[in-house]
Amino acid sequence: MRVASEVYKISWTEPTGTDVSLIVNLGDNVFHGTIFFPRWIINNPEKTVCFQNDHIPLMNSYRDAGPAYPTEVIDEFAAITFVRDCGTDNDTVINCAASELPANFPDNLR
Amino acid sequence: MRVASEVYKISWTEPTGTDVSLIVNLGDNVFHGTIFFPRWIINNPEKTVCFQNDHIPLMNSYRDAGPAYPTEVIDEFAAITFVRDCGTDNDTVINCAASELPANFPDNLR
Repeated sequence: MRVASEVYKISWTEPTGTDVSLIVNLGDNVFHGTIFFPRWIINNPEKTVCFQNDHIPLMNSYRDAGPAYPTEVIDEFAAITFVRDCGTDNDTVINCAASELPANFPDNLR
Repeated sequence: MRVASEVYKISWTEPTGTDVSLIVNLGDNVFHGTIFFPRWIINNPEKTVCFQNDHIPLMNSYRDAGPAYPTEVIDEFAAITFVRDCGTDNDTVINCAASELPANFPDNLR
């Protein structure tokens, strides 16, 4: 949702139990993300390195096994280098693991 | 932290396991909050209605008993009606439960 002129906030919770709240500042092309990681992801991040949509029951089982706490709060900034209108409900925007992106990503989008 | 001109983001995790990410837009005097509530708070909100700083071990025990999931994501806007510089690390800014505020709050601050 819009929280200021040209500034949008997007928040969700994930099958892993991770909570995410992002700021997209299209005026300055700046991105800011806050991620709240359950403790088990900090302990064993390799468990979540996959295209999670293909493994949701497994992610839920890791989530339920925990430990969930103490939560790790991560704040991170990034520069926005590319913006394109891909329409709504377009699952091709993210449809593979980061490791499966083309070697020339993101230049392949231009 | 600053995420846009006159727009600040504040994020934290609580002894209850609740995650919070707030936007304070001082240009438009608009506030936006995202709160990620563990399931047990949605089921039994009365457990958390107190000045939690006086009951942190109890809040941790509720957190650890859960259930934590599914997380409930709440988005809410509010108008900012009063701004004052109270300095840093000033614990008198919030030092009682909401039920213990003066009857004329927030007019008592003016």
